[in-house]
Amino acid sequence: MRVRVGINGFGTIGKRVADAVAKQPDMELVGVTKTHPSYEAQRAVTNGYPLFIAGDGARAEFERAGLPVAGMLSDLLGHVDVVVDAAPEKIGRQNASLYRDAKVRAIFQGGEKADVAEVSFSALANFEAARGKRTVRVVSCNTTGLARAAAVLEPRYGVEDWQATLVRRAADPPESGRGPINGILPNFHLPSHHGPDVRTIFPNLPIATTAVIVPTTLMHVHVNRVRLRRPPADAAELVEAFRRTPRFLVFREWERIDGTPQVMEFGRDRGLGHNDVMENVLWENGIAVNGPTVEFFQAIHQESIVVPESIDAIRAMFDLARDGPTSIAITDRALGLPVP
Amino acid sequence: MRVRVGINGFGTIGKRVADAVAKQPDMELVGVTKTHPSYEAQRAVTNGYPLFIAGDGARAEFERAGLPVAGMLSDLLGHVDVVVDAAPEKIGRQNASLYRDAKVRAIFQGGEKADVAEVSFSALANFEAARGKRTVRVVSCNTTGLARAAAVLEPRYGVEDWQATLVRRAADPPESGRGPINGILPNFHLPSHHGPDVRTIFPNLPIATTAVIVPTTLMHVHVNRVRLRRPPADAAELVEAFRRTPRFLVFREWERIDGTPQVMEFGRDRGLGHNDVMENVLWENGIAVNGPTVEFFQAIHQESIVVPESIDAIRAMFDLARDGPTSIAITDRALGLPVP
Amino acid sequence: MRVRVGINGFGTIGKRVADAVAKQPDMELVGVTKTHPSYEAQRAVTNGYPLFIAGDGARAEFERAGLPVAGMLSDLLGHVDVVVDAAPEKIGRQNASLYRDAKVRAIFQGGEKADVAEVSFSALANFEAARGKRTVRVVSCNTTGLARAAAVLEPRYGVEDWQATLVRRAADPPESGRGPINGILPNFHLPSHHGPDVRTIFPNLPIATTAVIVPTTLMHVHVNRVRLRRPPADAAELVEAFRRTPRFLVFREWERIDGTPQVMEFGRDRGLGHNDVMENVLWENGIAVNGPTVEFFQAIHQESIVVPESIDAIRAMFDLARDGPTSIAITDRALGLPVP
Amino acid sequence: MRVRVGINGFGTIGKRVADAVAKQPDMELVGVTKTHPSYEAQRAVTNGYPLFIAGDGARAEFERAGLPVAGMLSDLLGHVDVVVDAAPEKIGRQNASLYRDAKVRAIFQGGEKADVAEVSFSALANFEAARGKRTVRVVSCNTTGLARAAAVLEPRYGVEDWQATLVRRAADPPESGRGPINGILPNFHLPSHHGPDVRTIFPNLPIATTAVIVPTTLMHVHVNRVRLRRPPADAAELVEAFRRTPRFLVFREWERIDGTPQVMEFGRDRGLGHNDVMENVLWENGIAVNGPTVEFFQAIHQESIVVPESIDAIRAMFDLARDGPTSIAITDRALGLPVP
Repeated sequence: MRVRVGINGFGTIGKRVADAVAKQPDMELVGVTKTHPSYEAQRAVTNGYPLFIAGDGARAEFERAGLPVAGMLSDLLGHVDVVVDAAPEKIGRQNASLYRDAKVRAIFQGGEKADVAEVSFSALANFEAARGKRTVRVVSCNTTGLARAAAVLEPRYGVEDWQATLVRRAADPPESGRGPINGILPNFHLPSHHGPDVRTIFPNLPIATTAVIVPTTLMHVHVNRVRLRRPPADAAELVEAFRRTPRFLVFREWERIDGTPQVMEFGRDRGLGHNDVMENVLWENGIAVNGPTVEFFQAIHQESIVVPESIDAIRAMFDLARDGPTSIAITDRALGLPVP
Repeated sequence: MRVRVGINGFGTIGKRVADAVAKQPDMELVGVTKTHPSYEAQRAVTNGYPLFIAGDGARAEFERAGLPVAGMLSDLLGHVDVVVDAAPEKIGRQNASLYRDAKVRAIFQGGEKADVAEVSFSALANFEAARGKRTVRVVSCNTTGLARAAAVLEPRYGVEDWQATLVRRAADPPESGRGPINGILPNFHLPSHHGPDVRTIFPNLPIATTAVIVPTTLMHVHVNRVRLRRPPADAAELVEAFRRTPRFLVFREWERIDGTPQVMEFGRDRGLGHNDVMENVLWENGIAVNGPTVEFFQAIHQESIVVPESIDAIRAMFDLARDGPTSIAITDRALGLPVP
Repeated sequence: MRVRVGINGFGTIGKRVADAVAKQPDMELVGVTKTHPSYEAQRAVTNGYPLFIAGDGARAEFERAGLPVAGMLSDLLGHVDVVVDAAPEKIGRQNASLYRDAKVRAIFQGGEKADVAEVSFSALANFEAARGKRTVRVVSCNTTGLARAAAVLEPRYGVEDWQATLVRRAADPPESGRGPINGILPNFHLPSHHGPDVRTIFPNLPIATTAVIVPTTLMHVHVNRVRLRRPPADAAELVEAFRRTPRFLVFREWERIDGTPQVMEFGRDRGLGHNDVMENVLWENGIAVNGPTVEFFQAIHQESIVVPESIDAIRAMFDLARDGPTSIAITDRALGLPVP
Repeated sequence: MRVRVGINGFGTIGKRVADAVAKQPDMELVGVTKTHPSYEAQRAVTNGYPLFIAGDGARAEFERAGLPVAGMLSDLLGHVDVVVDAAPEKIGRQNASLYRDAKVRAIFQGGEKADVAEVSFSALANFEAARGKRTVRVVSCNTTGLARAAAVLEPRYGVEDWQATLVRRAADPPESGRGPINGILPNFHLPSHHGPDVRTIFPNLPIATTAVIVPTTLMHVHVNRVRLRRPPADAAELVEAFRRTPRFLVFREWERIDGTPQVMEFGRDRGLGHNDVMENVLWENGIAVNGPTVEFFQAIHQESIVVPESIDAIRAMFDLARDGPTSIAITDRALGLPVP
């Protein structure tokens, strides 16, 4: 029997999770919601995803646009085992009581505070923690990127101190109203909230983060400096450790990927849905080991990195896989991601 | 028997044409060339496209990268009926004699001057002109966009005067070295070369163009003002004329596509190769008719718009279709484009 | 006796008009207003401009910041002959009744609709129309740029048809929240409102405009195509006509100004306040004459172009100059602009 | 007697140093050089700076443009005591022998390697080291920013470990040809060269740096994390230490400066030449002290920060001031910078 999944919100995250659910062998996409007609609502219809109305949306609006509607959000909740909340930030928390009242399990995004759910989740790190839970929060794109890297570094080498500067994209590609157009905006929370957010997954990780916002829409870049207890012999060993881990992509120097524009071009050429690059992206020549200290860049595709995590969260909640690696392998094969 | 096609150059245009050739029922992709190892060369290999070396590239370089090489450009030319030149601007002309000496037919890009080939080509406009030719030049992205629009307007309504301002993207997405970052650069050729270039297709079209370069990588936008001899009754009639023509996409107001970022997002959601939008993109609410004068915006995806044109050019050269509309329908169906 | 001037709003426009008033021989800057403490409020204090509180601002806030406050907006209105409204768009109209009740004359910005004032104004075109008026609207930056050009073309050559594409900056430099970051947004009003707005100055001018928004903060660029009744003999004649007119700057080819970034660099090197370029900026090699048709680019510095116009408007309202050219010469000399 | 100064190169750095020299009581600007006519060459003439020809420039070119020329670079070298080399990167080293042969002292920019001169220089840190020297290298903008901060932190608190991420602007404002337009480019030198470059000033400073390039033209931002031996009691103490040091500007929270666009707007409002902000720019709410660890952002205006340093270097070389603080005070008063 397949787990029946609904997606509340069909924007940047929601449309990707919907596509991902539709590809899983053990899940069924029951429907998605949209507040107003739009090209994204049209896409749901074209894809054959039953379309429900959320928020203050009105059925007449959809009808005028010629978009067939399957019902309201409440109707969708009546037919699913779990809902993935992909509403805009802060709305997820408001939606929580709807889900509770409808007695459906729920996955929340990392834009919500940690106490919105029983557990915060990142598949490589704490798959078991979500097993059987009724509410799970998949941590944000930046936190997912850091947690995945921690899942490589912490058990193997022991993290003594981790400093990360997060160079953040200012807007997603279709968000045409957001700036800045020309400038850098520091995040005046020192350290930033991302460090504590990683500790919702790795409670004792000695990580401190700072962040700036820059005028790009493509990806975040993390500049990491980590002191390790039992450091690798050399960069090659570390490269190998990353390469053997699912959801890591380590470019070679001869591939001539000079930054995030070319990473995204790689994604367009590879041709997974929406040109996504769901892996942590590293560069062989962007990893250095100096004694106990490791430095590395990683680029994070903010739109897609949490998508496979959401799928694994569902599998953990419904006990569909015997362990994390098994779930990850099923997810990644279904999504077309390389399986190391 | 399939026409055997080689692609010389596997960058922005070359990789798209290669993918398109590989999807056609009446063509065979024999191989592609690359000068140096790169993620794009790796992609050719992954896709199963035989990889040949062009320019000053050395076999040892590819071997060090672990990329299997099928031979040199001269080897490729020995096994094809036609080569699509997708080398950087101005190099195409240099390559012309290689192709001639190898007795293979050739398609050139619009970055070369018109006299590089026997005829300049745009499928909606002059399919027949390329029939049986040995060399054809597919006009540039901007010229293709204008020629397609002319193919709608000129026969139906008679163009009396056409003014177009081309608001051009400054770089393609992976060209990380090109600017400007913050500013507008006028093209001081007044009028710009695009008008005369359209007349390589429509010899008497009274079109004058001007151009500015702006800091974006996504698409060009054409601002058109056309005075017609026999104007349409209203904008709705004109919308319908565009909609009934292949390779036109006319967004509705309720789709809420506010500019090129969301057009590209539509492309990512639609999921043709590389997220391409190969159509001329118009907006219902961006088309106005005032007496004899029509104004309309069209957005042009500079990376992909010439791809289906190149396919049709091959079909014309080798007499593979009885007419343009037939070829266009075969091409577009193979590429996943809507067929009106 | 000097005209006593107050500035309501000390942002992009207000701070520039304040500086300009302070430099005029026949005006006195009585004070400026700000809603909240900020670096701009600090600048007013540093410059010795008495600072008044507008909107919902609270005196305590300013005191905590150590910024001395001279009173509320109502106090300022009690001591001025005229107020220049430099509040955000749409607020000017709300303020109009305050000014009327305080019996002070008022100048409004072009962001307000034309009926906010008795007359719309552009100094080169209709100085006399503002003479003795109690309320005047200085038209917007784009309209000012077009009206100035019309003041050169219409009387000399007779405009038969004028098409302009406005390539607009998306945000002012300090507006760090506005996008788009990477994309072009058409203005779906076809034609755009700028044409009718020019006709508030030149009632019968046959001008039609369209507009797109692009990701830059520096300047707008207008792409103009004008058919004239009595065209100039050649481009050189037209260049000379622009050069002999105040508030036009025509770059020579050897100056190597390739676009708006270098125009702004010129402004920084020249060193008028805020690095402003208050003139219409043209290029010799960006002006072409083909029979009756003239094509030219002009760049418009949206932050400063209306500043000298506001000064002239005051002079017209209070009958301080015998004619427009006299006022313009006084204004421009005081501002450091070249006087032809 | 004034030191006679020539400036070789009148671009981003050269024009600023020229203006600064012209304002000093103990220096005389003998002339500047330019290779070709341009708006910058015109500016030199307008400013009354004798214009000499460098590089492959030809006198006829300048004459055609109507720009009076005072001679060739060799002529200029015959009349100066010191030349400030402001040629493009790598050209300075080539010029060194010209200067040596002409027996003039020389100042080089930080784009040259350290061994181009006897000493590398930053006024707050090692003024005495340049005393009487014949060749001095003023370190680059980023290194100057770090060295100034080190001059505050190291003597007072003892630096135990300093990690800095340099978020670098991709181009200067008038460099319209440079990208990227939309993306982040990591610098794959790990650590970057800036750390060792700071050690040309502070030989034992335990600083490690990494860098990324982002699509902005305005300023660099440094994200610093420093562990101190004798940390300050709190952030307020550190704020005070920065504020009491020349060439530091620490914004208050109520000034509402949210990033580099508004820092530059502050510069435009303040009105020093070219709108420059020659200080290290910090924010009160961007400085945090956690036990022994200090975190702070600083923004660096790449175009101007080395200008006052170059002036102090001249003063040190010619023994014109009894110590660094004296020279700095003279320089900064002449430039209009605040003197703490």
